[in-house]
Amino acid sequence: MNIAVIGLGLIGASFCKAIKARTEHTCYGMDTNGQSVEKALADGSIDFAITNENIHLLSVMDITIIGLHPRTAIQFVLDNLQHFSKGSIVTDTCGIKTSIVDALEDKLQSRGVHFVGAHPMAGREFSGYDYSLATLFDGASFIVTPTQNTDSKALETVTELARRIGFGKIATATPEKHDRIIAYTSQLAHVVSNAYVKSETLLERSGFSAGSFLDLTRVARLNEHMWTELFMDNKAPLLQEIDTILANIKAYRDALANGDEATLKNLLRVGRELKEESMKHDVNKRK
Amino acid sequence: MNIAVIGLGLIGASFCKAIKARTEHTCYGMDTNGQSVEKALADGSIDFAITNENIHLLSVMDITIIGLHPRTAIQFVLDNLQHFSKGSIVTDTCGIKTSIVDALEDKLQSRGVHFVGAHPMAGREFSGYDYSLATLFDGASFIVTPTQNTDSKALETVTELARRIGFGKIATATPEKHDRIIAYTSQLAHVVSNAYVKSETLLERSGFSAGSFLDLTRVARLNEHMWTELFMDNKAPLLQEIDTILANIKAYRDALANGDEATLKNLLRVGRELKEESMKHDVNKRK
Repeated sequence: MNIAVIGLGLIGASFCKAIKARTEHTCYGMDTNGQSVEKALADGSIDFAITNENIHLLSVMDITIIGLHPRTAIQFVLDNLQHFSKGSIVTDTCGIKTSIVDALEDKLQSRGVHFVGAHPMAGREFSGYDYSLATLFDGASFIVTPTQNTDSKALETVTELARRIGFGKIATATPEKHDRIIAYTSQLAHVVSNAYVKSETLLERSGFSAGSFLDLTRVARLNEHMWTELFMDNKAPLLQEIDTILANIKAYRDALANGDEATLKNLLRVGRELKEESMKHDVNKRK
Repeated sequence: MNIAVIGLGLIGASFCKAIKARTEHTCYGMDTNGQSVEKALADGSIDFAITNENIHLLSVMDITIIGLHPRTAIQFVLDNLQHFSKGSIVTDTCGIKTSIVDALEDKLQSRGVHFVGAHPMAGREFSGYDYSLATLFDGASFIVTPTQNTDSKALETVTELARRIGFGKIATATPEKHDRIIAYTSQLAHVVSNAYVKSETLLERSGFSAGSFLDLTRVARLNEHMWTELFMDNKAPLLQEIDTILANIKAYRDALANGDEATLKNLLRVGRELKEESMKHDVNKRK
């Protein structure tokens, strides 16, 4: 197949590298950053570059993977609707799905182009081409969010490609369910982690950092531009998760403030039991 | 030396195993759980068992390490004051220090017994003898909390033992500073992690769990009996950290609720920068 990857950041470039390392497909890449394109050509991560001048090359693609942040992704597809061929597939990599699917599915479908909303559940604490890896997706979950309008063969083509490049599990959800769950498993984690480092005690802690601190704050190092978009475009589910954890943390706080040892112990016990229950369902266990 | 370890749980038994694996010292162990004592004798983690019947053996110890939870630790030492020899050392392993030092230092010192408050910064998500490891402390921080009354030679003896059994760094703080920092780096992490799992979304998340979720919730699996004691006996510093993170999380919440994108992005940027700054000071880096 001919596959185009638009955006050669961490995720997009990792797609290119994995496609070239593990399939026979031809990979085309595009990025506003000329250096990333040059590196990708030089190290063989892409076979050809797409530029504004030869953007009509999109018409020979079987799949176009949009590796851009949500708003730029939408803009790119809408700006280039005329270039996608009938029967070809457009898919994305955004961490939210409802706003993406709502913005793109009808527009593409009315031109006979198949759209498959997707979210590769992988990342690193670094962004950009230089951190991309052919192995980034190994064992990770690839979430697809088909609607009743999604072409089943297009969906199969995209998930088959995902398996080929290393994903360990294909998960399926409606865009709405995806966004609700991701608000909890990923977005809330980034909010809490980013808030955690905002204590005056932070810079006093040399030699005192247990693994718990490092775990809680690992994702505090985030790309604020991307995450602001993701949060803003998933406002209702994320607000609900934030309000839930605020209320839950406050329960421990009040038990502690009141010296209510029995309540505090019970709160901790319930949390431990929920964690143990949830561990039975983990597909992505860490040692 | 003759070293006694009182309490053969995860921490105490790991002390025994590391002492036997890496030093020539003689190790005596005591536990209310007879099975743990039998296992420790059988696998050579201790040379001799101390029981209520031969508790006078404490009088031949150079060092007695109290590997019990805070309140039991205090009770044990006070109940056995008459058995510790003049010039010998008693040290503990509790995760809080002010209440321990306040309860024990004067009592021991008035009998000529040296006390060194200590906190080995290591653990696992499991407790009990069966999870103890000779390598548990490798590279970890060993925090000591000497006061103006602490005997400098006793302090040196304890820290030298810590180095011999694997600790990578010796950190020193007053008991009060220790408790203030630990409220942030460890106790708050356990509160937040334990609260994090209390969302109705928890059990819907199969296939959706990114590393961020697993990181945020790792320490949710805690021993509620021990942590209730630790929290209750460190109430003021922990309350302050909880109030700080509640206020900080609420700032993101309000920016999101108000659709205030600039404020949200700025909050995330400040968090990222603080995390990056704090990473420069990490002694305990993870890849």
